[in-house]
Amino acid sequence: MDCIFCKIISGEIPSAKVYEDDDFIAILDIRPVHLGHTLLIPKKHFRNIYDTDKEIGEKIYPVLVKLANAIKSALNCDGLNIVQNNEPAGGQEVFHSHIHLIPRYENDGIRFAIKHKQYESNEQMAEFAKKIANKLK
Amino acid sequence: MDCIFCKIISGEIPSAKVYEDDDFIAILDIRPVHLGHTLLIPKKHFRNIYDTDKEIGEKIYPVLVKLANAIKSALNCDGLNIVQNNEPAGGQEVFHSHIHLIPRYENDGIRFAIKHKQYESNEQMAEFAKKIANKLK
Repeated sequence: MDCIFCKIISGEIPSAKVYEDDDFIAILDIRPVHLGHTLLIPKKHFRNIYDTDKEIGEKIYPVLVKLANAIKSALNCDGLNIVQNNEPAGGQEVFHSHIHLIPRYENDGIRFAIKHKQYESNEQMAEFAKKIANKLK
Repeated sequence: MDCIFCKIISGEIPSAKVYEDDDFIAILDIRPVHLGHTLLIPKKHFRNIYDTDKEIGEKIYPVLVKLANAIKSALNCDGLNIVQNNEPAGGQEVFHSHIHLIPRYENDGIRFAIKHKQYESNEQMAEFAKKIANKLK
């Protein structure tokens, strides 16, 4: 499969490896927001959160917690963003599921460029909640 | 405890609820990036990723997967960002751990304002990887 992360996992493409176990590798992002910006990548190939492998889904967050604490301790960063971008409209660039761990520092000037929306009424908000809740039934 | 999310969980403060089980609730963010922007909140109070409750850590990601698919199906969004901000330098505003699910649309104009850093050399990159890896031992 022509997937850059599969090639990194197999060792065909080199990477700066931070962590590896049977199910995951963590490597440094080559285009970091800050140095030490890490990617947690399941070895099993799936596209993103929507089609998450069941077993991987049950295992991934505890690995994130371990990595988060290691990054904090290694870099002495002031904060950390955990980000998973899904689909091109969500900023996903490699279509092998992965999660960013981005060290942050006081006044580092990084921010979302967002104009927040507003619900017109409590009723509209309740409607949106119901629409999503209905899909969970 | 004077925690707004604990008060939402107990029902003392109202919310637009999307999901609830024994361990989690999901509600709409009152200041949404897009309508339908959802917060997944563990009922148990802890601060953020660093001190994640072990049992919650093992359960949370599968709930995110369920919510992600429900949001996609309900809103027909083109993408989705999963974001957990940790500590004030990381943009955390409520100090009860929570994860954002942000629906995204083609050309919605939302982006990170980031000037990416660069590693000076492969050696520097390897050093950073080692520094973090050492904290995982």
